Amino acid sequence: MTILDGKKTADDIKNEITAQVTIMKSNGEKVPHLAAIIVGNDGASLTYVGSKVKACERVGFESTMVKLPSTTSETELLNKIKELNQNDDIDGFIIQLPLPIQIDTQKVLMAVDPTKDVDGFHPENFGKMALDMTTFIPATPFGILELLERYNVETQGKHTVVIGRSHIVGRPMSILMGRKGFPGNSTVTLTHSYTKNIAQITTQADIIITALGVPNYLKAEMVKDGAVVIDVGITRVADDSTEKGYRITGDVDFEFVSKKASFITPVPGGVGPMTIAMLLKNTLLAREQRKARN
Amino acid sequence: MTILDGKKTADDIKNEITAQVTIMKSNGEKVPHLAAIIVGNDGASLTYVGSKVKACERVGFESTMVKLPSTTSETELLNKIKELNQNDDIDGFIIQLPLPIQIDTQKVLMAVDPTKDVDGFHPENFGKMALDMTTFIPATPFGILELLERYNVETQGKHTVVIGRSHIVGRPMSILMGRKGFPGNSTVTLTHSYTKNIAQITTQADIIITALGVPNYLKAEMVKDGAVVIDVGITRVADDSTEKGYRITGDVDFEFVSKKASFITPVPGGVGPMTIAMLLKNTLLAREQRKARN
Repeated sequence: MTILDGKKTADDIKNEITAQVTIMKSNGEKVPHLAAIIVGNDGASLTYVGSKVKACERVGFESTMVKLPSTTSETELLNKIKELNQNDDIDGFIIQLPLPIQIDTQKVLMAVDPTKDVDGFHPENFGKMALDMTTFIPATPFGILELLERYNVETQGKHTVVIGRSHIVGRPMSILMGRKGFPGNSTVTLTHSYTKNIAQITTQADIIITALGVPNYLKAEMVKDGAVVIDVGITRVADDSTEKGYRITGDVDFEFVSKKASFITPVPGGVGPMTIAMLLKNTLLAREQRKARN
Repeated sequence: MTILDGKKTADDIKNEITAQVTIMKSNGEKVPHLAAIIVGNDGASLTYVGSKVKACERVGFESTMVKLPSTTSETELLNKIKELNQNDDIDGFIIQLPLPIQIDTQKVLMAVDPTKDVDGFHPENFGKMALDMTTFIPATPFGILELLERYNVETQGKHTVVIGRSHIVGRPMSILMGRKGFPGNSTVTLTHSYTKNIAQITTQADIIITALGVPNYLKAEMVKDGAVVIDVGITRVADDSTEKGYRITGDVDFEFVSKKASFITPVPGGVGPMTIAMLLKNTLLAREQRKARN
């Protein structure tokens, strides 16, 4: 059994990006610039955005954090987005979700210039992905592809079962695993809350990608010997023995599933750390595309 | 066993649209206007576009056929598209495929104003579909959904297997069957040329949608009793006993599969006739959206 080490892989990617930025600088080129908009004071959101800014600093990107009060109106946010769309110094930007209830999230995501949409949430970019065109792939699915690629996990002709149909993980993952190329060319089954006999389906899978958010959901008896198991679940479970009072738990009953799997991602340290690395990669791509256009 | 009668259903839809257009006219409103661009003189393409124009006449739509020579350059075609994008009298338009080799099809499809893209081929519309937003659904998948809906075929919690991952049928169909709502909420498996043990997968399916283009590919032993079978295959098979010298054959070995199926589409007369009806429906939707915006 091989652990798909997301922490190490993310570090490798960040080092590679740092090297590229160093070359850009020595050539006197503009370095990638990522902006992040955060509305309100949600603790988890602030932590996520903080990590993204820190990651930018580490690889030598410029970064801008735009903090707006929780009372921000939809129009005010749309105006800010327009400003970032028009600001030629910004290569890409993200809007930290969730947004306060007075704001229509879909409308806001639609307002982002697709060429700066490094989260890959704009329908045009999502459609390009589904139509096998080059585009920004949402960070979590992109991170999973990168792990499969770097560990040379065979996907062609394999049966991949995806659990959960969210817009940010399950749906795009199901599309990407069935696309032409590598990683891809998988037979893909997308399962969700209406799926019957889920264990009957997962036991047939060569690759299982679970993005459900239910701790220890995937038991050993649901997995066949030698399966590849990717755990996208991140749930805080109360745990008095830890300093924070909780621990992060995945969807996979790791202790027992890991005994049957050929490859498996741990939680934490698997898919999670890859997400920010792939956001950086998308921002670098946005910079390169902007340069090629100008 | 129930035949999903596409010819009758398409007629019903056309009659419903005709009734709506009659009301529009009596209210002194502009009626929907569909334009079709055809480049070159391919016989099959001319026939398809001809049928679309005829269907417009039948329901009372305005229609415009733009015929360009096979030597048309990409720039000339893009200019014509720009003209149709800007022409406020045109509610929707389509570009008949395939295009001559000197023209980049993807670039051309990207140039269509998404609000006029009644074929649903623009990445923005494809992405909206994949993100559960209201949009133009490509005509063939849309026609299949409509058949399932009008015949009250249960899809929720069923296992749907789609054969073939083309951009115009298999890929969108796999997305649509797994979306929330009805028809939808299916567990969906998308299979293709790299799929191993296809019969092992199809025999588990409650619903099979085949879009392969291989005559009589789906045999009775690949189908479980009571399955719903949707045949999107349209292949011309030489047949001297017919006047034209060929007959249209589907992917399904109809004689034997129909004995096991609960619902089945015939070829011809199944999915085929639905396609044009759904193009008209998209054009009506485009007209209504344009009216709401102005």
